[in-house]
Amino acid sequence: MRTSQLFFPTLRQVAAEAEMASHRLLLRAGFIRQLAAGIYSFLPLGLRVLHKVEQIVREEMDRIGAQEVMLPNLHPEELWARSGRAESFGPELLKLTDRSERVFCLGATHEEVVTQLVATDLRSYRQLPLILYQIQTKFRDEPRPRGGLIRCREFYMKDAYSFDRDEQGLDESYHKVAQAYGRIFERCTLPHVVVEAAGGVIGGTETKEFMLLSEAGEDVLLLCPSCGYGASADQAQYGDSSALAPSAAELLPLEPVETPGMKTVEQVTGFLTVEPKDLVKTLIYSADGKTVAALVRGDRELNEESLRRALGAARTAMGTEELITRVTGAPVGFAGPVGLRAIPLIADEELRASRNFVTGGNRADLHLKHVNWDRDFQVTQWAKLRRAVAGDPCPNCNAALEEKRGIELAHIFKLGTDFSRALDAAFVDEAGERRLAVMGCYGVGVSRIAAALVEHYHDENGIIWPLSVAPYQVIVLILNQEDADQVKLGEELYSRLLESGLEVLLDDRPERAGVKFKDADLIGIPIQVVVGKRAAHGEAEIRLRRDRQPQTLPADQVVARARQLVEGLP
Amino acid sequence: MRTSQLFFPTLRQVAAEAEMASHRLLLRAGFIRQLAAGIYSFLPLGLRVLHKVEQIVREEMDRIGAQEVMLPNLHPEELWARSGRAESFGPELLKLTDRSERVFCLGATHEEVVTQLVATDLRSYRQLPLILYQIQTKFRDEPRPRGGLIRCREFYMKDAYSFDRDEQGLDESYHKVAQAYGRIFERCTLPHVVVEAAGGVIGGTETKEFMLLSEAGEDVLLLCPSCGYGASADQAQYGDSSALAPSAAELLPLEPVETPGMKTVEQVTGFLTVEPKDLVKTLIYSADGKTVAALVRGDRELNEESLRRALGAARTAMGTEELITRVTGAPVGFAGPVGLRAIPLIADEELRASRNFVTGGNRADLHLKHVNWDRDFQVTQWAKLRRAVAGDPCPNCNAALEEKRGIELAHIFKLGTDFSRALDAAFVDEAGERRLAVMGCYGVGVSRIAAALVEHYHDENGIIWPLSVAPYQVIVLILNQEDADQVKLGEELYSRLLESGLEVLLDDRPERAGVKFKDADLIGIPIQVVVGKRAAHGEAEIRLRRDRQPQTLPADQVVARARQLVEGLP
Repeated sequence: MRTSQLFFPTLRQVAAEAEMASHRLLLRAGFIRQLAAGIYSFLPLGLRVLHKVEQIVREEMDRIGAQEVMLPNLHPEELWARSGRAESFGPELLKLTDRSERVFCLGATHEEVVTQLVATDLRSYRQLPLILYQIQTKFRDEPRPRGGLIRCREFYMKDAYSFDRDEQGLDESYHKVAQAYGRIFERCTLPHVVVEAAGGVIGGTETKEFMLLSEAGEDVLLLCPSCGYGASADQAQYGDSSALAPSAAELLPLEPVETPGMKTVEQVTGFLTVEPKDLVKTLIYSADGKTVAALVRGDRELNEESLRRALGAARTAMGTEELITRVTGAPVGFAGPVGLRAIPLIADEELRASRNFVTGGNRADLHLKHVNWDRDFQVTQWAKLRRAVAGDPCPNCNAALEEKRGIELAHIFKLGTDFSRALDAAFVDEAGERRLAVMGCYGVGVSRIAAALVEHYHDENGIIWPLSVAPYQVIVLILNQEDADQVKLGEELYSRLLESGLEVLLDDRPERAGVKFKDADLIGIPIQVVVGKRAAHGEAEIRLRRDRQPQTLPADQVVARARQLVEGLP
Repeated sequence: MRTSQLFFPTLRQVAAEAEMASHRLLLRAGFIRQLAAGIYSFLPLGLRVLHKVEQIVREEMDRIGAQEVMLPNLHPEELWARSGRAESFGPELLKLTDRSERVFCLGATHEEVVTQLVATDLRSYRQLPLILYQIQTKFRDEPRPRGGLIRCREFYMKDAYSFDRDEQGLDESYHKVAQAYGRIFERCTLPHVVVEAAGGVIGGTETKEFMLLSEAGEDVLLLCPSCGYGASADQAQYGDSSALAPSAAELLPLEPVETPGMKTVEQVTGFLTVEPKDLVKTLIYSADGKTVAALVRGDRELNEESLRRALGAARTAMGTEELITRVTGAPVGFAGPVGLRAIPLIADEELRASRNFVTGGNRADLHLKHVNWDRDFQVTQWAKLRRAVAGDPCPNCNAALEEKRGIELAHIFKLGTDFSRALDAAFVDEAGERRLAVMGCYGVGVSRIAAALVEHYHDENGIIWPLSVAPYQVIVLILNQEDADQVKLGEELYSRLLESGLEVLLDDRPERAGVKFKDADLIGIPIQVVVGKRAAHGEAEIRLRRDRQPQTLPADQVVARARQLVEGLP
């Protein structure tokens, strides 16, 4: 392809709201353009990258015996009602009404559609196992689209669904897909860690995320540098800490204190000149319809997943303002454990070490000082409730956990039989018994991989694509389009590189050399062939985008050298 | 791929509403499944066909220098408002509201989005010409989805948009795309005719359709067997007919006649025992806001495009009930030219030959007999207004036109500057003048091609895929999965055919031979290799799906013969 004909409008500047490097560079390099918040067009160079990632994903899914299908994006709402997600999925699920007033959901994920598809034709155990996948556009009305292609409302992904005879079959399918994902990231040269994750609106009994570690990522992770344990911050567990020994401090007399209008930890601790760790937060939750109070230190966050597990509850939800007021008799911000006898009090284990702490007073504008458990209130249950933080002991090996940020690349779920029960995906087993298919689901963000690659591979001058996903492998720059020697040699090298089977871009625009160098560095083609003044002597330069160390070669060695570099590059 | 692992649920019967062969066979062969009216899932075999058609389309678009992009499907309604189509496109355009109450249109076509995309980055004439295309899902809320993949609400298409410096550039781009389309249909082995068509909601000054002739098609065409002229019935022109000489019949006295409740041509002509051709219909139209009456014979249909041209009007619309009542003073069904002096009367030229005809009486329940032009009313303008019919003279060569039915495969439009003006897609030309890009747009139905191929290539046993789009090239049938010789030879041939570079399906299911033959014929793989009882003697049969004439060969000649057949097949 010739740049003189290619639609790749490069920009020197982009709007300041593009905070992530991948967002800025994909815009500047003319790979994408925004149509609306979280909605992007892919220009020719951007689409070539997307297609390369897509093809790697396809090959690795095919390799594990998964079969590609294409499912619709208009889903009858009745179908989502059968799984219960028409409501529970929330406002991320876009809906529309057709000309005959029938409501459709716009494909955000395809568990319902694929389960119904399989249910229609599933008869016998001999049809299983089955892994179906598709690569297509998804629609989710994200509240905060960000980072260009990182978090979009319309994005390109591969989603897969496995159907097995039993749990053991699911384990095998889940393992196979996890391995395929590992190979996908390896071929894209994208380093990743696998962490335990939250099920969210997809649900499931076991779920893992594949993350690229990146300071620009929006997910916080806790990773064990010793044994490899990893989890998202809202899921991470931790081992027993030796710091939990009860304090030997003397119990001081309980003391009410007026705190007019002070509702936040910062306001109260600032006013009382104590540390946030010396305050205890009393959080009112609804757990499977019952009200509980959860106590954690003022400098900690509650891990809702841990709360759920400790209570053995299927669902928990933070209390509404109405519930909090009813239970505590006070406005939001003044809840405390003292006198709260009607509901169970579940306390974070860390509080065993706390003495003489501050809590709300269950009355407007009132807090209590020198509160102590046992003396002032009874704890119904002790449990690990707080979120893990850096330095906590690894739950497996007790090494200190480290906190990192990451970009989610993929997510895999063991779903079990929730969807197959709701949509009647059953088969007759070898013994003639009717059984529900055991399902898993698996997603990898194709457009997000493209962005993550830029986040990982760039410098101050632009993108540095790995060869496996680069839009072209080689770019030939003719520095002076009015110099007959340069044009002749550039065109000749372009033809010969193409003939040798490489993917080549020729910069034949009537632009200054500086513009061509800048654009070549910006768009990040891995190998640059520069045809300049030495063309008169039959010589050209070849260099890698990543180090830009030029090597001058006789023209007839350029193709061989380019091929050699292609072999050696990731 | 092994059929024992492939998800291709074949059916012996499908619902009676599947009237078209392609609809029935794609369902029966397990290529597609319906999710809702006009909304289909593609199963693995169906998607393979779709991908093959897609790749042919991509290669032919790339060959003419078009560049592939991917544009979003969520379009801000404001953008469609700028082109005026947010309203005018009608209920086929699906709309939805996001979480912040912003309205989006779901991608039915992409003129607005692509024009805005190009407008943002277009500066100079040197960036033109430019042809951008994409291959993706489109959404149109069709009032009457039909024929499976023939007319869907969610479908897969390639749409392209050209941007040129001037009309001459547009002519060249339009010609290039038309040629690419010709090559696409040739490679898909799909015969087609090119006809003049209506612009519809896309608009444009010149527009042509590529049609597959098929009795099952929903479009009516008029074709000249002599010179190749063709047009859709609502667009077809015709030459001058010698039958238009004025009648020599005597003018009879005008005679009012009571026709209580008789509003249709059938009712009136039945009651008065005259032929439909002896009645004249008076059709009230609004043309660019002015009211006119158009007169055509009772056995003819008005060609609205001809009316528009004759009046030099940009837009015409059939009169509303309110307008008709106001203009004629009578309910709908009783309009006539006599006494209708306030508005222009435009009459079809064919009426020059009519004498003593019947018309409405401009009063409820009244018609007039023995009406004659000139004597009873004045014609403002004579023009060719009626639709062409079979037997009419070709407008080019006067041969008799033939009527055929067809399936639309593709549609190309010269758009001019309507969209570039509305969305400000301008550039600076060589003289430094600011000019609007001159646009064309071009669509070809990828999923519709797949269905049209089945419509064209099938027999009573199933589909007969052309090799270029077949899901696999060869199928190997092991007739008895319990016969060790057959299994050994079948597996061996499967491996060797794969190694030779062919796309092969192996039927290794523990099914009866009859089931395997039926399924093989149904799914339509072009070459069948049958491994049966002769396997013990090291022999297999090879045959084409299209004629099923078996040839028995020693096993070691099967691969060579299969490759030979592949070379020879379309």
